[in-house]
Amino acid sequence: MRSIPPATVSRLPVYLRSLRDLPERQATCSSDQLAALAGVNSAQVRKDLSFLNPAGVRGVGYDVAGLSDLLRDALGLTHEYAVAIVGAGNLGSALANYRGFAGWGFEVVALFDSDPSKVGSEIAGREIEPMADLERVVADRGVAIAIIATPAEAAQEVADRLVAADVRSILNFAPASLRVPGNVAVRRVHLSTELQILTFHLKQLAGDGG
Amino acid sequence: MRSIPPATVSRLPVYLRSLRDLPERQATCSSDQLAALAGVNSAQVRKDLSFLNPAGVRGVGYDVAGLSDLLRDALGLTHEYAVAIVGAGNLGSALANYRGFAGWGFEVVALFDSDPSKVGSEIAGREIEPMADLERVVADRGVAIAIIATPAEAAQEVADRLVAADVRSILNFAPASLRVPGNVAVRRVHLSTELQILTFHLKQLAGDGG
Repeated sequence: MRSIPPATVSRLPVYLRSLRDLPERQATCSSDQLAALAGVNSAQVRKDLSFLNPAGVRGVGYDVAGLSDLLRDALGLTHEYAVAIVGAGNLGSALANYRGFAGWGFEVVALFDSDPSKVGSEIAGREIEPMADLERVVADRGVAIAIIATPAEAAQEVADRLVAADVRSILNFAPASLRVPGNVAVRRVHLSTELQILTFHLKQLAGDGG
Repeated sequence: MRSIPPATVSRLPVYLRSLRDLPERQATCSSDQLAALAGVNSAQVRKDLSFLNPAGVRGVGYDVAGLSDLLRDALGLTHEYAVAIVGAGNLGSALANYRGFAGWGFEVVALFDSDPSKVGSEIAGREIEPMADLERVVADRGVAIAIIATPAEAAQEVADRLVAADVRSILNFAPASLRVPGNVAVRRVHLSTELQILTFHLKQLAGDGG
């Protein structure tokens, strides 16, 4: 498992979600269908999934339930993860309210803010806690993943504290590059990337005279 | 240009951002370095960029300024795009305040909400407008891209109105699949996907005994 390339890893959740979107009664799925759902080509699908040694049947396709299990296992989605959100501004609040996490085994167990006027108020049924409690709460509640939704200026200090508190996975929404040790994974969400993919489409339409 | 595969298109913004992150004085960039910055392998970089016919010099690499221009051109980033945000809840507000859009030629020109108590208040210096004005505002301000940040239940109706108002690119944050005509591009942002990539990393750490 250790040798799965990062680009393949980033596509595994897309395959898993695509399988989940299939009609419930569908038992098998061809690489062509999975490719269409995931938005990649079918050779890429077969290559990516070959890392998981799936039981594909030639001419029939992948067993949907079996492949879903392999994907969940590869992604470590076989148990629950405690998530902390740092920064309870608009973005942090939106993430705390986001309904898409729970179905995948992610539970938001803490929400922090440095603003004393926010501490104690509730978002999505969870009380905002002060930054001073970060280390204690992370340890007590077994936080595995932290989401940084602070302003850019605060992000590095927050990351340093999370790393010192043994958090090894960080999702960074702050528009800032983070320096972390090699054993910490950081994913940065670039919202402008999605818009740029759309402008490609707009340019194609313009080229079509549309 | 028309034949660039979707998966390649989705990586072009990553390459462009990676080049922008290089030190200013760096004039050339190898495919190995670009691959490392973009998180893909160098064969993929060379294959993706071959669609743009870049002026690569063997043993030296790509000309940074020239390649950046090709990428911007391919992505249609050579002019400004007017963006409308529909839904002024926490997520819509966070997006309206997001500082990462402007540097790439995206300007938020309108912000809509269906809640009369929100209409008229300001976010990021822009007044929230009523949904009744959607079609007129989209036409008057030449909105090219719309961001849907409504609850799931409202997303399809909003998409239908945007499409009828001639918006051809939609970025969908609502946890709902949208049905749109074939000439409309929709990108859906799945926040849980990013967390799943992080759990893969956590699983690797656990396997290391770390």
